[in-house]
Parts: sequence; structure tokens; C-alpha cells
Amino acid sequence: TVRKLFLLPGDGIGPETMAEVRKIVAYMNSEMKAGFETDEGLVGGCAYDAHGVAISEGDMAKAMAADAVLFGAVGGPKWDAVPYDVRPEAGLLRLRKDLELFANLRPAICYPALASASSLKPELVEGLDILIVRELTGGVYFGEPKTITDLGNGQKRAIDTQVYDTYEIERIASVAFELARTRKNAVCSMEKRNVMKSGVLWNQVVTDVHKTKYPDVKLEHMLADAGGMQLVRNPKQFDVIVTDNLFGDMLSDVAAMLTGSLGMLPSASLGAPDVKTGKRKALYEPVHGSAPDIAGKAVANPIAMIASFAMCLRYSFNMIKEADTLEKAIANVLEKGIRTGDIMAEGCRQVGTSEMGDTILAE
Amino acid sequence: TVRKLFLLPGDGIGPETMAEVRKIVAYMNSEMKAGFETDEGLVGGCAYDAHGVAISEGDMAKAMAADAVLFGAVGGPKWDAVPYDVRPEAGLLRLRKDLELFANLRPAICYPALASASSLKPELVEGLDILIVRELTGGVYFGEPKTITDLGNGQKRAIDTQVYDTYEIERIASVAFELARTRKNAVCSMEKRNVMKSGVLWNQVVTDVHKTKYPDVKLEHMLADAGGMQLVRNPKQFDVIVTDNLFGDMLSDVAAMLTGSLGMLPSASLGAPDVKTGKRKALYEPVHGSAPDIAGKAVANPIAMIASFAMCLRYSFNMIKEADTLEKAIANVLEKGIRTGDIMAEGCRQVGTSEMGDTILAE
Ligand SMILES: CC(C)[C@H](C(=O)O)[C@@H](O)C(=O)O
Ligand SMILES: CC(C)[C@H](C(=O)O)[C@@H](O)C(=O)O
Repeated sequence: TVRKLFLLPGDGIGPETMAEVRKIVAYMNSEMKAGFETDEGLVGGCAYDAHGVAISEGDMAKAMAADAVLFGAVGGPKWDAVPYDVRPEAGLLRLRKDLELFANLRPAICYPALASASSLKPELVEGLDILIVRELTGGVYFGEPKTITDLGNGQKRAIDTQVYDTYEIERIASVAFELARTRKNAVCSMEKRNVMKSGVLWNQVVTDVHKTKYPDVKLEHMLADAGGMQLVRNPKQFDVIVTDNLFGDMLSDVAAMLTGSLGMLPSASLGAPDVKTGKRKALYEPVHGSAPDIAGKAVANPIAMIASFAMCLRYSFNMIKEADTLEKAIANVLEKGIRTGDIMAEGCRQVGTSEMGDTILAE
Repeated sequence: TVRKLFLLPGDGIGPETMAEVRKIVAYMNSEMKAGFETDEGLVGGCAYDAHGVAISEGDMAKAMAADAVLFGAVGGPKWDAVPYDVRPEAGLLRLRKDLELFANLRPAICYPALASASSLKPELVEGLDILIVRELTGGVYFGEPKTITDLGNGQKRAIDTQVYDTYEIERIASVAFELARTRKNAVCSMEKRNVMKSGVLWNQVVTDVHKTKYPDVKLEHMLADAGGMQLVRNPKQFDVIVTDNLFGDMLSDVAAMLTGSLGMLPSASLGAPDVKTGKRKALYEPVHGSAPDIAGKAVANPIAMIASFAMCLRYSFNMIKEADTLEKAIANVLEKGIRTGDIMAEGCRQVGTSEMGDTILAE
């Protein structure tokens, strides 16, 4: 089989961390006959510099045709003043929308070797393993109108629109329930039904999907603000959290930070399985951003990018054993005390981006 | 002088905790000739039970006429299924909107005696003193359309609308900068300008207000998701945070939980000063909710309610000395190891709601 990977390293530390994934892909091709075919494009600020847009039509077409997209990171102070429609993030948002990647899976796990790096007390995060399932193609990110209007008299009015249809909530809820069945079988749905109509509908639809298709899964509802509190108070109470695009953005960042493992956390953005082939479009990216302050210094932590590739093996190519092996290699290297600067601790050995990648590959 | 207080204890633990404020008011009237006149009304579920609405027109009129409103809490499982327009929260939202209480001040402070109760490592929260300034009458809470429409075929569409005008951002930014000048002189503004047009306008207006009126204050901008992360990673980096209604809801709850002092945190919601009298409408309420699980058991922590009254003395009546005294009394009682159940610790003495109120009054 040929497995088509499209790489979009993007800006900042994206290219450096993607280079470490390339090594693993090359190894799997030569030693394991994995048959990966890779192509590479531009996204974000570098695409703007080259083409004046955050992603070119050519690269969009390649992303559409690939089995999986690996995405690094976008943005940086250099592009802070570019027009809204071509800002670096627009490339990522277009990929999510046009590939219909409605399901964003963000594991927040605490690597045992790093529990002490959390700002939370270690006993609260040791063994933490939450999966946040975030809706990614709807809500306030894409709803129209989305405008700034000049009202005269020096006044402007900005409008963003949160829109959710039943089917959008149904499909993300189903993903959450399915995944819960492979884990601790518990879903917590978060919204603001006490303030938002979209929260009311969200709550109803999740309740219906649960009743008709997944009555065996434990379901709880929580207001999103209370959910943020509970994440800080006692994160281990959660298994799978399902929530909308904007709440998912906030809550997954808080959850990621709780683990103390921000530079280690991957994510997967998945579309619906094709009715004929069963294949789903997919994009994999680290939860962390482009970290312009350390870009180009060869010190960035490549683990989130590598762990994103492990998710790619698991969800796009059903290479479960290989994904497990890669994830185990990451955990082992951490256990051995090999660290990049961001997670450096007493008694550990500090390495750069490339050595971290090599060590994981060797492992 | 006559000082008109309108009390809205609401549901759950609201009435029990408000009773402790009544004791302090009575004391200040008899011993200090404070001249408080109190009246009381219904809000939330209890108002719905009595009148079929979350607050009656009569009580709204009294709230409008008062110098300050003291609000307990609303809601509980009993009213989970009441229609959206008359749900308990609707009473609170109407008060905020009709009184034009656009500025919500939420201090997140860590009482030294309680630093170990935080889920964060004590060194990260000891001495923490953040003020979150949340916009309270705009954004997605009140924007129109706010609807659920039946599309047929079993599909519904829910819409909420985030709307911000320049003047709304200007006035809340000014409040934040003014308050920063009385503190550590630093403001961090949070929005999602990379995704939301309202974030773009928010960022521009805050920048303009800063440049034209408050160039002496340190101003930083942060994306709201990154802000949530930074609150967890290193909360002491912040002095004043200014943000919109929905982000403020989430971020202030996360910040409150960080302190380990959730049952202790007050809030003030302020209107604009009247052009003639200089008086501003105001409502004071605890950050915590109605806690239906412990309601009626005389064990609730009244400190957040009492601290809300201290904010009322400070902001509505300019009784700075009295506010300081009351806040000091709370801190002293905690230092002495007197605790309600929610903050109980080794070696402390556990008391009920009423004894906690009495002890603070005695102090
Ligand atoms: C870069 C930005 C548009 C994006 C988002 O808001 O979704 C990021 O914060 C994320 O969480 O993936
Ligand atoms: C009760 C609810 C409507 C309210 C809000 O969302 O504003 C509460 O969470 C708060 O923060 O005061």
C-alpha cells in the first residue's frame, strides 16, 4: 500500500519539529516497508510571504488528496499586522473547514516522568488521562455574520455568530461516545445552556444521542465555566469531555497546561468516514503553537509533533502496534531522563530537538 | 444619610449566607449609625415559584431605586426544566442588563491561611491578587438573534450572537485602567482576535484607550486560550485582566478555583456614574453558586457573601475604612483557624454558617 502524507510544517518551530517526524517516516519506509509517500507545502506566515495567502489553492488540493496531513504550527509577530483574511491562522481554519475535520481529539495525559512539572500538586495529575473531543468546524469560528461595521461617530460594531445545527452536535457526540467505550466509558458534555441557545440545543442533542445509541456510556452535563473550575480542582474525575469549538479551545488549553506536558501533547482532527471507502480525512498537529521566541535555535521539543504522528498511525492507517511502539518510545526516553529545555529537571540530561528525535527513533 | 440596600438572597445557600450580612448591617446601624435601610425581594427559582418569573416587576423597580443590591445565588435542580425565559439565571441577567451593570469586578485573591487548599503548588498562589474586570452587559449573553429554529427533517438550528460596539469596549477598558492605577498598574487584555471579529475590535479599542488616556499603565494583550493556560501556569504574572462577558465567565471561574478560596470570593457589578449625582448602580454577589447540595443545612460558608458586602461598602458608599476593617476581620478569623466545612483543615475548628458570621462580626 501507498500511504500519502502531506506535510505542512508552517512557521516558527514547525519546520524543526517536523524534521524529526521525517526521520521516523524514513526509518519506517526503509526498515518496515511502510510505503509512506510524503509531499510538503506551505501554510501560515510562510505561505503568506510566498503567495500572499495563508495557504495556496495548490496546497489545499494536495491536502484534500492526501491520506493524512501533518501540521506543525503557524503565526508569529512578523505577521501580526497582515490583513485578517490572510493572517496565518486562516490557513489552519481553512484546512479544518474544507476538509470537514469536525472532530478534534485532544488527549491531556500526564507523562509519569513529568508529573512534578505541573503547576498542580502531583497527586492531582499523576496518571491523568483525559480526552477532550472538541467540535472543530462549527460554532463561533465559522458562523455568519462575522463582521466589523462602521456606525459613524467613531463607533464600530463587531459581530460574531455562534451557529450549531442538530447534525453537527449529533456527529461530534457520537465520536465522543464511541471513544469513551474504548476508555473508561464516561462522557462529560460542557456548554452554557443557562445563557446560550446553542447550549440548550447542545444539551438536548447530546442527551438524545446518548439515550438512543449509547445508553451504556455514563453521561454527565456540566456548565462550561464550572467545567473549567473542575478541571483545575480535580481533573482526574474526567474521562472524555465533549464540547463546542470555542469552549473546546479554552478548556483543552487549560487541560493541556494542567498536565505540565504542554510541549508533549498531540491532537488529531478527523472528518467523517467516506461512505464508500471508509477512509476519513485527517490532520494531526501539536497542541502547542509556533513558539517564535525559540524558533531556529534547534532547542524546541519535538515530542508533541512526534506524538501527533503516532496518532496519525493509529487513526489514519490503523497501524495500532506501530503507534503503541512510538508512544512507548517517547515515554521510555522521558523515563531515562532525556529532556529538551522546556521540560528540563534536576538530574536529567538536556538535549536539542534533533537529539531528542534521534533518541526516540533509537528507542 | 440614608443608605438603601436591596437584598435578593435567591435560592440554595443564598438566604443562609445573606442572614450573616444582615447581622453586620444591623450592627453597623446600631453601633455606627450607618443608616442602612434594607428591603428584600425574590429572585431566581423562588421568584418563579411565587410569581412565575425569575424576578417580578416590583422587585426590579426596587433594585433600580436602591443604592446597592446584594445578591445571593440562584438556581437548583428543582428548576432545571422551567422554560428558558423564566429560568433562575434570567433574573440575574435582567438585573445586570436593566441596571446597566457593565463592569464586573472579580478579585481572585489567595488568603494566606488557605494557600494550601489550592490545587496548585502553594508557591504559585501564595499572595496571589488578581482582579478580573469582566464586561457584563454585552457580548454573546445579550446579542440578537438568540434563537432555536426548527429546520424540519428533525434538524434544529441554534444561534447566539456576540456583539460589541466601540463604546462598550471603551468604558470597560477605562474601568480596568483606572483600577490598575490603584494596584500594580498593569492590565492584560484577553480576546480571540485570531478567530473573532469582536476580538479584533476589542484589541484595537483597548489599544486606543490605552494610548490616549492611560499611557502610564502597562498594557499587554493575550489570546484568551493562552490566557487560560497562563493563569494555570503562573497566575502571579497578572494584576488586572480585562475581557469580555463569556471569556470573563470562564477565566474568572478558573482564577477563582486557583486560589483555593472559591467560597470566599466576592464580586461587584457596577454601572456608569450618574452624570448629575456621581452615583453608580451596583450589585454585589459571591462568585460561588447556590450549592443546592448543602442548602438548608446551616453549613455554607458565608465569607464570599460578607466579602461582597465589604465591596459594597467600598464601591457604593465610599466607606473605605469600614470595608478594610471587615476584610481584615475575615482574614483574622481565617488566621485563627476558624473554618466552615468547605475549607476545613487539620488543626482548625469547624463551625457552621451562623457561628462563622458571628465570629467575623465579633472580630
Ligand atoms: C491558532 C488558532 C486559530 C487555534 C484555534 O483557536 O482553534 C488554536 O488556538 C488551536 O486551539 O488549535
Ligand atoms: C449564573 C450565570 C448566568 C452566570 C454567568 O454566566 O454570568 C454565572 O456563571 C456568573 O459567572 O455570574
